[in-house]
Amino acid sequence: MDHEYYMRQALALAEEAMEAGEVPVGCVIVWEGEIVGRGRNRREEDRDALAHAELQAIQEANRTLGGWRLHKARMYVTLEPCPMCAGGIINARIPEVYYGARDDKAGACGSVVNLFEERFNHKPRLVGGILEEECGALLQVFFQKIRDKRKKNS
Amino acid sequence: MDHEYYMRQALALAEEAMEAGEVPVGCVIVWEGEIVGRGRNRREEDRDALAHAELQAIQEANRTLGGWRLHKARMYVTLEPCPMCAGGIINARIPEVYYGARDDKAGACGSVVNLFEERFNHKPRLVGGILEEECGALLQVFFQKIRDKRKKNS
Repeated sequence: MDHEYYMRQALALAEEAMEAGEVPVGCVIVWEGEIVGRGRNRREEDRDALAHAELQAIQEANRTLGGWRLHKARMYVTLEPCPMCAGGIINARIPEVYYGARDDKAGACGSVVNLFEERFNHKPRLVGGILEEECGALLQVFFQKIRDKRKKNS
Repeated sequence: MDHEYYMRQALALAEEAMEAGEVPVGCVIVWEGEIVGRGRNRREEDRDALAHAELQAIQEANRTLGGWRLHKARMYVTLEPCPMCAGGIINARIPEVYYGARDDKAGACGSVVNLFEERFNHKPRLVGGILEEECGALLQVFFQKIRDKRKKNS
């Protein structure tokens, strides 16, 4: 199981989001070694509050596999999931989640809350810090660019 | 503000879900008195782990209004939202949520956890128990039918 290999695929999707002017988060879902779902943040382009990388990847995996239960899947995502996405992981019964950078403001896998340790009917295994520096650096560059742009315009 | 009027619209969608063989949950989103988003559970039909009533309604409201921020909206949903849907409500910045029945097993608005009272950047106002008996009775009838069917087949 090459966690860094799959996280690099998620990072490539995060870079794609950045080029589109979106907060750079990417995600892949792996089933028996194959990538069956890909997602990246599309909130602004799609004008859709739910268009986070993880939910996009879950929906693609559901379509690819023809069923909603992802009980043999692994998720790789560049940023710690928010409550919505952590809830989506629980609902899709994904047993293993690997993330890159922590999200101190909205993280629901240990930072603000940990939904995987509550009394729900599914508790995924969680590993953080995969390619953490690269995942975090991409976000830092994105938010620095926004601050520079604001400064220039003010 | 006629909360029972809007909850009846959500209940009608829950009944539609029940007729389709889905767990009967329905939801409407109201913006300045008008219903701008409707949703009902479609998980089995769509083979989609994310096809809960609330997310369907949020996506429809985003499309109707042409933006992802539902900062003047009210949500009416027959069952207490799960973590995924409560997270979607936070992400869409919905300020008021009215629900019918409590969900002791998966509720994320007071039953298992309360995501609206955590350190996230948005805290919706929450009112439970609107047409609670009718909302709960629909679910009870649905699960009783499933149990009867299983007994018959065993």
